[in-house]
Amino acid sequence: MYQAIRRRRDVRAEFTGEPVPDEALMRVLGAAHQAPSVGNTQPWDFVVVRNPTTLATFADHVAAARLNFARSLPGSRRDTFEPIKIDGIVESGTGIVVTYDPSRGGPNILGRHTVDDTGVFSAVLAIENLWLAAVAEEVGIGWVSFYDENYLAELVGIPAPVRPIAWLCLGKVTEFRQVPDLERFGWRQRRPLADAVRYETY
Amino acid sequence: MYQAIRRRRDVRAEFTGEPVPDEALMRVLGAAHQAPSVGNTQPWDFVVVRNPTTLATFADHVAAARLNFARSLPGSRRDTFEPIKIDGIVESGTGIVVTYDPSRGGPNILGRHTVDDTGVFSAVLAIENLWLAAVAEEVGIGWVSFYDENYLAELVGIPAPVRPIAWLCLGKVTEFRQVPDLERFGWRQRRPLADAVRYETY
Repeated sequence: MYQAIRRRRDVRAEFTGEPVPDEALMRVLGAAHQAPSVGNTQPWDFVVVRNPTTLATFADHVAAARLNFARSLPGSRRDTFEPIKIDGIVESGTGIVVTYDPSRGGPNILGRHTVDDTGVFSAVLAIENLWLAAVAEEVGIGWVSFYDENYLAELVGIPAPVRPIAWLCLGKVTEFRQVPDLERFGWRQRRPLADAVRYETY
Repeated sequence: MYQAIRRRRDVRAEFTGEPVPDEALMRVLGAAHQAPSVGNTQPWDFVVVRNPTTLATFADHVAAARLNFARSLPGSRRDTFEPIKIDGIVESGTGIVVTYDPSRGGPNILGRHTVDDTGVFSAVLAIENLWLAAVAEEVGIGWVSFYDENYLAELVGIPAPVRPIAWLCLGKVTEFRQVPDLERFGWRQRRPLADAVRYETY
């Protein structure tokens, strides 16, 4: 368990393109589906996308969003950002669009009465299960967030009020890098654990 | 890995009150701290609460929120809800308040430029790491969401713009139940995995 948590990486450049067997894909999705959820609503769904045209179309959209972000950066940060690859949409061969349906479970959701966000948080817990199970299968995951949510909803036919909350690239990898890309490229370093732990009050 | 994902429960009634050793607690928090995060921002913090007065005060607040929810339910659902225990705040002996700091990482967050929610989602990924590591330590976690966010922020001194996003009860347990409480008590059953998996379009 701890080894998988430590080895997990957000993969961009290491996808081989080799197909992941359907049985492994279903085990990984089954792990996601065993996540906890508020009121046991299980508000997630998983759209498996392998159509090369859809992958290429989405990759073009993401490349444009990347350019917008680069242009928004001050000069020195732009130089740091430049070599960082932000997706492996086409190379991985498989996208998993994770969706959140706020209407699932009806109007009386046990636990969402007070904190409405616990609904979408449940779908995020499923993503971490999926990610760790993928490590156990020696399969890489890369979460892409350089996209417009409405664009992605239209691309794969997601009707309101359902929201796409993530595009995950999934595929075989040459390796899991030991150091995360954003550390390797000097974008942002890891905080010490001691800084994140507080006692009794914030 | 798959065994931990399968065994994980949202614990309410099975806390023994026996203290969890500090080394185990730090391993569990260390697993949380190894979660992926957008732009490597690591926007989470963990407030460990063991002061009996704070635990009792929060438990009272949660009991009131539980009553409000029960009153909002139509009759048959109210009867189903009645026997369901929703927290083990006092019995567990330890609360972990997980917080999200949207200001961490400055104004140019790689990956949050397009989907702002990926910030808070990062802190939720840390929660699932924490939960699964706890299973590996034979420690139970129960996520409590029957509270008012501003009340909890004030209780443990969390300043804006930081948000408390979860109260997790953490403690030794008599067992991990095989069937989740909300299934056992007939609140909501599990969907088949096949219903959650779609291909190419939603």
